[in-house]
Amino acid sequence: MDAVIEDIRADGTEISGRRPHVVILGAGFGGLNAAIGLRNAPVDVTVIDRRNYHLFQPLLYQVATAGLSPAQIAMPIRRILSRQKNATVLMEKVEGVDTASREVVTENRRIPYDFLVVATGARHAYFGHDDWEPVAPGLKTIPDATEIRGRILAAFERAEATQDANLRADLLTFVVVGGGPTGVELAGAIVELARHALVRDFRHIESATARVILVEAGDRILPTFPEELSAKAKKQLQRLGVEVRLGAAVTRCDRDGVSLANGHEIAAASVLWAAGVMASRAAKWLDVPADRAGRVVVDERLHVPGRGGVYVIGDTAAVKGADGRSVPGVAPAAKQMGRYVARLIKARLAGSDIEPFRYRDYGNLATIGRKAAVADFGWLRLSGFPAWLLWCFAHLFYLVGFRNRIIVFLDWAWAYVTFDRGARLITDRNDR
Amino acid sequence: MDAVIEDIRADGTEISGRRPHVVILGAGFGGLNAAIGLRNAPVDVTVIDRRNYHLFQPLLYQVATAGLSPAQIAMPIRRILSRQKNATVLMEKVEGVDTASREVVTENRRIPYDFLVVATGARHAYFGHDDWEPVAPGLKTIPDATEIRGRILAAFERAEATQDANLRADLLTFVVVGGGPTGVELAGAIVELARHALVRDFRHIESATARVILVEAGDRILPTFPEELSAKAKKQLQRLGVEVRLGAAVTRCDRDGVSLANGHEIAAASVLWAAGVMASRAAKWLDVPADRAGRVVVDERLHVPGRGGVYVIGDTAAVKGADGRSVPGVAPAAKQMGRYVARLIKARLAGSDIEPFRYRDYGNLATIGRKAAVADFGWLRLSGFPAWLLWCFAHLFYLVGFRNRIIVFLDWAWAYVTFDRGARLITDRNDR
Repeated sequence: MDAVIEDIRADGTEISGRRPHVVILGAGFGGLNAAIGLRNAPVDVTVIDRRNYHLFQPLLYQVATAGLSPAQIAMPIRRILSRQKNATVLMEKVEGVDTASREVVTENRRIPYDFLVVATGARHAYFGHDDWEPVAPGLKTIPDATEIRGRILAAFERAEATQDANLRADLLTFVVVGGGPTGVELAGAIVELARHALVRDFRHIESATARVILVEAGDRILPTFPEELSAKAKKQLQRLGVEVRLGAAVTRCDRDGVSLANGHEIAAASVLWAAGVMASRAAKWLDVPADRAGRVVVDERLHVPGRGGVYVIGDTAAVKGADGRSVPGVAPAAKQMGRYVARLIKARLAGSDIEPFRYRDYGNLATIGRKAAVADFGWLRLSGFPAWLLWCFAHLFYLVGFRNRIIVFLDWAWAYVTFDRGARLITDRNDR
Repeated sequence: MDAVIEDIRADGTEISGRRPHVVILGAGFGGLNAAIGLRNAPVDVTVIDRRNYHLFQPLLYQVATAGLSPAQIAMPIRRILSRQKNATVLMEKVEGVDTASREVVTENRRIPYDFLVVATGARHAYFGHDDWEPVAPGLKTIPDATEIRGRILAAFERAEATQDANLRADLLTFVVVGGGPTGVELAGAIVELARHALVRDFRHIESATARVILVEAGDRILPTFPEELSAKAKKQLQRLGVEVRLGAAVTRCDRDGVSLANGHEIAAASVLWAAGVMASRAAKWLDVPADRAGRVVVDERLHVPGRGGVYVIGDTAAVKGADGRSVPGVAPAAKQMGRYVARLIKARLAGSDIEPFRYRDYGNLATIGRKAAVADFGWLRLSGFPAWLLWCFAHLFYLVGFRNRIIVFLDWAWAYVTFDRGARLITDRNDR
């Protein structure tokens, strides 16, 4: 192991007689893949996350719209790593990184590292309008999802209960801000909830008359897809019953609804935010420059310049692909970066090096609703039912944990046949 | 319908030309069965609940110990009643009852009734020690259950993270106060979680060494069962690994643990409360006397004396059985009362009467853990594996909703084969 110690010493650290320690912050797709990639490496791995579970974020919108339960898309981090002997999991909140002494600072202690992998993801962002958050919640965590689920279902309940026709109309209007994948999924799922799952359950309202309006500042939805698929996605959304407003930046957002840059006003009791993300505070912790989205600028090996042994991956990293374009903040990219950094650490410990990181784009999938999706593989573009089937299988396949996969499959099959939604709970934080 | 109007008039109300209105407060086992019992009656039924779901409370301890997800034991009230044309569901918080004008007062309005069925259940009670609640949460609602689940799992996480041996011991000690069915179920489930589901997942602690202590003030657990079965239940609990302390009333309860009347102190970071219940505030709403447990004293037809048209059922009612003993606060009793009151209302509308309410005790089941339970049918007493199998089938059979039943069955089968627990999420209220 002399090479190891030599290599790390050259980097500014001394290790005497112990195994190098790799600390990974965050157990999302990036962090988890980094940890698993190191399973046979001569290192000790510590994964730190402030939650005890890994979240399968691509299906979070299903929790927000009562299709799945939180536990179906979340898996204890310890369970995933329980057989990996060199891995320890700690549930702690990180407060900072002391890059000089090479220590992670948490609420309770300082944890020394030889290699640090920062994979703490991103949150939704309001671009200078943080006061909009209470009115227009975003969707990144399980509490976000159960909060949104409660709001949507409670809006129907209040509409059923009220005798005020104006209030009822506002309660049955849902605005989704942002035409990326999350916004499209949410809008499609809400309109399906209103037109199918809820339709027989009310006496005073017709849930199917609910309006769902998708508002996008740009000139098309799903801007990372080819224009042809954006147009098809828009048509599919409209067929489901979603109103799509393009070129419509939001200028006001409060309890009464939203105002758009084109002067239009939409009265709505529920506004959901899917318009942008901001990386976690990693740049602050490391005291290094961030790009406009708060991401840490890393080199072509995902290393943070000037911060020996520190790598940043996933949604927290600003990485340029071989074609000069930014690597997108999607799950496959985070996974690839996690695996890359594990390979790189193993190579460095062996005193060698590997080629720069290269993002492989295997294709782009977005679901819209029942039998509606778009898929772009460059050489093949799909929309409608075939794309939707592909989306279903891909997501079931990648869902961590065999048990979750069966149960989710059964829930989907049931929902498909009956149009039912199983998890229609309004569980208020203050409801005791 | 003249008889109807005549009958209700004799009771002090006038109805002119409209269908009588039955308002049911609470959609637990009692209220729901009252509503369903009126499905063919010439009345309008309004069910008011502050939650949007009916909760299958007998399995709530499984949510608290990460075995099931909330949505698996909760069903939207509207879904259950969606095909019953004469039933309307309102999600509102009841603030009182104006028995003079015959109106229910909610946050938003006054709702007139001809018949009122109060089925608002019970909460856990601390008998003059309400300050113990933050330290020792009870288990009656879904937020209660997810709170307890979070506390149990977080205790193991903190024990894994700490380097303080005393703190670690405290974190791995769980005290359950109260030896009734809920306390027994919780204690059994926690010890199984520690000894099976979690056992491979930690590196610094042995989760199997966790102590679970069941503390009961009386001289035996499950006091509503025959003494022989109480003794067997105690042995089964001990075999699973639970320490059982009898004749041990709690005199102090705080963040350090509990003190017992016999002078013993137990240092424990987690205390769970299953020691008693107090009925909802129905007696206050109706301005009538309550018994020591806060229950409204009703006559032999579950009618509230002096409050025309008002019935109280389920855990909120103090009812004497034919043998002079109090009807117990269990799901079968609530169901029977709900069905009885529906029959009675139909009879009164037809100008007739029915026999007094009589509780039929079909037997008593309590589960302890894997392959461990007790069952008392009077003529037959079972314990161990046969009682446990019976308990499983009975609870699956009664679980509302066909879909939930399949999914719960699969989850149980999976848990049985693998010892795994699927819903191990720590979802803090403040975790955003």
